[in-house]
Amino acid sequence: MHRLIGKLRAVPGQPAALAEILLQSSGAMPGCLAYIVAEDVEDADALWITEAWDSAASHQASLQLPQVRDAITRARPLIAGFDSHVATRPLGGFGLPG
Amino acid sequence: MHRLIGKLRAVPGQPAALAEILLQSSGAMPGCLAYIVAEDVEDADALWITEAWDSAASHQASLQLPQVRDAITRARPLIAGFDSHVATRPLGGFGLPG
Repeated sequence: MHRLIGKLRAVPGQPAALAEILLQSSGAMPGCLAYIVAEDVEDADALWITEAWDSAASHQASLQLPQVRDAITRARPLIAGFDSHVATRPLGGFGLPG
Repeated sequence: MHRLIGKLRAVPGQPAALAEILLQSSGAMPGCLAYIVAEDVEDADALWITEAWDSAASHQASLQLPQVRDAITRARPLIAGFDSHVATRPLGGFGLPG
């Protein structure tokens, strides 16, 4: 499983609008097992996006989906920066999707 | 829901041993909906721990559980540092545990 953990910084005051765009675009992505947008309890303009995919290739392919390309276009003006973005591989635990 | 995203840095060469201790201790924690330990694809000594709890209070209470206290004691010599640790609140998406 391919799990992504990313921290986006919204333009000040715009995290809710940015989250809405991201959530609208995330349905029906082949190979996507989880896609969760969360606010940071202590950082008002930050959003955390955690994703689970059956493979890195499925994630890569999703970037060409029309709804994802459209969301990227609409989201870009609301993004101040990408604070971090990492790919991880689960070693174990419970509550994994899929 | 209370979701924690943490990045631990293991003593060089010890991430697998550290992950094993963390995974052994994570069963049967009241209020814990997910506990996943993952390796970082690009950072060999880093581990990412993502947790989901029904409340911040449940997480706080877990720190007093015997198996968690024991795990912290055994894990400490294998931890070089805590790179980041944040609390988040999901705004939406799919694949959420519980």
